[in-house]
Amino acid sequence: MAIKPQIENITVLGTGVLGSQIAYQTAYCDFPVAAYDISDERLDSARHSFERLAALYEEEVDGAAGGPARDALARIRCSADLAEAVREADLVIESIPEKLDLKRDVYARLGRLAPEKAIFATNTSMLLPSELAASTGRPERFLAMHFANEIWKRNTAEVMGHAGTDPAVYEAVVDLARQIGMEPIEIQKEQRGYILNSMLTPWLDAAEYLLLDGVADAEMIDKTWRIGTGMQLGPCEVMDMIGLTTIYEVNAASDNEKTRAAGAYLKEHYIDKGKLGRASGEGFHKYAAAGSTANP
Amino acid sequence: MAIKPQIENITVLGTGVLGSQIAYQTAYCDFPVAAYDISDERLDSARHSFERLAALYEEEVDGAAGGPARDALARIRCSADLAEAVREADLVIESIPEKLDLKRDVYARLGRLAPEKAIFATNTSMLLPSELAASTGRPERFLAMHFANEIWKRNTAEVMGHAGTDPAVYEAVVDLARQIGMEPIEIQKEQRGYILNSMLTPWLDAAEYLLLDGVADAEMIDKTWRIGTGMQLGPCEVMDMIGLTTIYEVNAASDNEKTRAAGAYLKEHYIDKGKLGRASGEGFHKYAAAGSTANP
Repeated sequence: MAIKPQIENITVLGTGVLGSQIAYQTAYCDFPVAAYDISDERLDSARHSFERLAALYEEEVDGAAGGPARDALARIRCSADLAEAVREADLVIESIPEKLDLKRDVYARLGRLAPEKAIFATNTSMLLPSELAASTGRPERFLAMHFANEIWKRNTAEVMGHAGTDPAVYEAVVDLARQIGMEPIEIQKEQRGYILNSMLTPWLDAAEYLLLDGVADAEMIDKTWRIGTGMQLGPCEVMDMIGLTTIYEVNAASDNEKTRAAGAYLKEHYIDKGKLGRASGEGFHKYAAAGSTANP
Repeated sequence: MAIKPQIENITVLGTGVLGSQIAYQTAYCDFPVAAYDISDERLDSARHSFERLAALYEEEVDGAAGGPARDALARIRCSADLAEAVREADLVIESIPEKLDLKRDVYARLGRLAPEKAIFATNTSMLLPSELAASTGRPERFLAMHFANEIWKRNTAEVMGHAGTDPAVYEAVVDLARQIGMEPIEIQKEQRGYILNSMLTPWLDAAEYLLLDGVADAEMIDKTWRIGTGMQLGPCEVMDMIGLTTIYEVNAASDNEKTRAAGAYLKEHYIDKGKLGRASGEGFHKYAAAGSTANP
């Protein structure tokens, strides 16, 4: 029987919106975390993110106030030196920009610098683990672990290997996901977009096409979905929550001409007018106050 | 300025799941209703449906108990004679099977039998009003008015004209929708699937593909959607609510090979095993008690 790898020290590469949330949430769940980014400026900005997250957890997470949220900060150390950041890592979670060549370069360096025991997990949204596996130099210890924005509320970790991922490594990462407060979503086969985006994308595209084609406005679209399905949120409200810039970027990268046209429509009618979604106070809908977190 | 047509007498053609709900809901909102179907047997079955709906409204609809739900029954008269059923109609709502030729035949007869003033509204799910308009002999007084199953809870009426629909007729139907307790969804342009199904179909298809491809099971799919979006229901729960037979029929009629394959998967693994959704007590998920309403 395979021995399940032990995970104690965790390094997070990249301190953008999701990277900083992953690092903070992991530290909040009692793990020592090394947060790596490429410059001291970015690490300064990361420290601010961690502070904001601590304040947010105190407000929104049960039991976080009165100590725990602030104690988590002490478990995060920041580093702009990759070798130093990964020296003791049992698990490296990579959350750097979605560029294939960049990720491959970083995995090649990481493969040389990290201890042999270290597992690498990518938080990529768009790529497949099989597209990165070879560059890691340790494909059997590599897989995807995909988080959602506002990790403390939408606490899924979609765990997805490639064909060569060691099942014991997969299991260890599923266990770790639970230990850091995530609901592990065990994906049986490589699937671009995992589970959530595989469903979210066509649904949001359909709503955007209704807007683009002038069939109905955002108000009608959301109302119809809410009443027709009994759910609380329509697709335009969900896009406002995700942030219209992210929606636009995903659309702009699509192979589908109509999807790109819908992206251009969003840019012209919303983004270029400063309507970025809930975080900016207005998107398809107006919001009483600007959202408390940045857009991804 | 156009004079908005007055709507007082309403005839509903077809007393299937939706037709009987439309007739009952309309009568419940104080309108005299003629319910037409092709045989006395079907009308007997319709009378049972109305009785069941009255009992259901008493339980589920505020203010329906203690009189109103039963009083509605007295406002419905049943007829298997089309000429008699439409003689005084201001509005005829057609909810007969989704067969183009059948609908065209019925509209041709209806056009000769109904008073000139009568507006015709089709509850079609799959067809466009423009595909039926010519057969009515009164295209300017013809449009679509599309209801959802469990009309007393999912109270949308998607109102959609074709290019030749008189705007005053459109307005009169929107007003009438409000008077019968519906939230009118005003659709600006012909769109196959209206608003709700335009979004529901690609979303449900995506979930079915994940099942078909063995990426994840229904439990994981629903859990991911619920946590990832904050909504109450995942797509497999929604399919259980709609009824898997309906999902299968929609899939089987698709042009898309993968969609048809997903339909065949549903048939083999669920429908053929008697797992029809919430109404049968089990579909993708198990339910404590069989649902209180029939599947569409």
